[in-house]
Amino acid sequence: MQIDILTLFPEMIESVFNTSILKKAQEKEKFHYNLINFRDYTENKHNKVDDYPYGGGAGMVLSPQPIFDAVEAATKDKVAKPRVVLMCPQGERYTQKKAEELAKEEHLVIICGHYEGYDERIREHLVTDEISIGDYILTGGELGAMVVVDSVVRLLPDVLGNQESAPQDSYSTGLLEHPHYTRPADFRGMKVPEVLTSGDHAKIEAWRKAESLKRTYERRKDLLENYPLTEEDKKILENFKNRT
Amino acid sequence: MQIDILTLFPEMIESVFNTSILKKAQEKEKFHYNLINFRDYTENKHNKVDDYPYGGGAGMVLSPQPIFDAVEAATKDKVAKPRVVLMCPQGERYTQKKAEELAKEEHLVIICGHYEGYDERIREHLVTDEISIGDYILTGGELGAMVVVDSVVRLLPDVLGNQESAPQDSYSTGLLEHPHYTRPADFRGMKVPEVLTSGDHAKIEAWRKAESLKRTYERRKDLLENYPLTEEDKKILENFKNRT
Repeated sequence: MQIDILTLFPEMIESVFNTSILKKAQEKEKFHYNLINFRDYTENKHNKVDDYPYGGGAGMVLSPQPIFDAVEAATKDKVAKPRVVLMCPQGERYTQKKAEELAKEEHLVIICGHYEGYDERIREHLVTDEISIGDYILTGGELGAMVVVDSVVRLLPDVLGNQESAPQDSYSTGLLEHPHYTRPADFRGMKVPEVLTSGDHAKIEAWRKAESLKRTYERRKDLLENYPLTEEDKKILENFKNRT
Repeated sequence: MQIDILTLFPEMIESVFNTSILKKAQEKEKFHYNLINFRDYTENKHNKVDDYPYGGGAGMVLSPQPIFDAVEAATKDKVAKPRVVLMCPQGERYTQKKAEELAKEEHLVIICGHYEGYDERIREHLVTDEISIGDYILTGGELGAMVVVDSVVRLLPDVLGNQESAPQDSYSTGLLEHPHYTRPADFRGMKVPEVLTSGDHAKIEAWRKAESLKRTYERRKDLLENYPLTEEDKKILENFKNRT
């Protein structure tokens, strides 16, 4: 997969991409990235990338020209039609499902603004997807772009080892994860639940499933709406509701 | 504000914190950060930070000892009681409201795991907040921690200039932003809406409000539920619904 990122702050991104799983994915040639400072594509004398908004108001707006030209330069020799993703607060809320969809692409171009607004013509005529990683305000799109790349690249075939992929895949099972414990069995008087050291695998599985259901009920009821509860699951939840 | 981050990959974070607004905030002494590799706090011979889960199963679990000790070292001489935040998929979904809450604190400690699970005793006895930045799976908590820090630090007094704070504050007005345009008025045949170059400020404001309402209706109906719609707003939305 080829990933091109348009940003005014390429130095923010480099070290994140050269660490841990993303580094390994590059060594295995599963993905290549290119950081494009779209200031290099400005055609005005002072390399200005933004300008005042039509109609007045505070804040600056990113000009269409450097961004159109940078995207065109990044995509012109490519066979695969790229997805052009704009990181912005007005975008579709990012989810694991979207990550899975993007992981099927050959070429992603991600555009990061940095506190300025985007000229609407970029949105209307250049991008294929507008993404927001959550309902909070960030200084720029760079952290969002890194979130998208990290979540997508770890889904590419042969990128993750078993050890890395197994835990914390809460959104794959549809429930939040059950509690985990490791040694020591007694840490400063805080003990591991006995069932986990019992060696009874059926009991351990039942405990884990029940804990997963309870945690999901307590923290993310919305996830239970789409989860196919068995009769046994329903009983566990009923008991839990009656006790609390 | 003092922010301590526990991570096995401090090099991922450094360059993000030394760029743009976060850099300026440090120069203005609005926040100080400290990256703590909790591997330095291990007491075992091979500096192992994780171990196999009790009860079996794939994946590793972060041991309590190094994390408890690292947090205690970071907080022992502090007067302010710190908020100890765990980045994890099971956590509370992060929002701008939570950012505003954390921005009032003097000292944040943020714990980042890295694809391993956390020993439950960390959750139960050490942390004050569990945060998830969204419903997608990341390799580790570092990107989440950077999202929290960026969103919190930009809210601290005197960190942002006018130019930086004005736009894209969608979640503050309660509606998504209206479209922005800047020069040129005609870019490759794509034109700026006439109203914006009319000089009629009342008309421009009305257009912007209507566009904001429409965009929010199209993309984020959920935000309208909590928005105090005026009679005029309701008319605009009715007209828009009838046309689409």
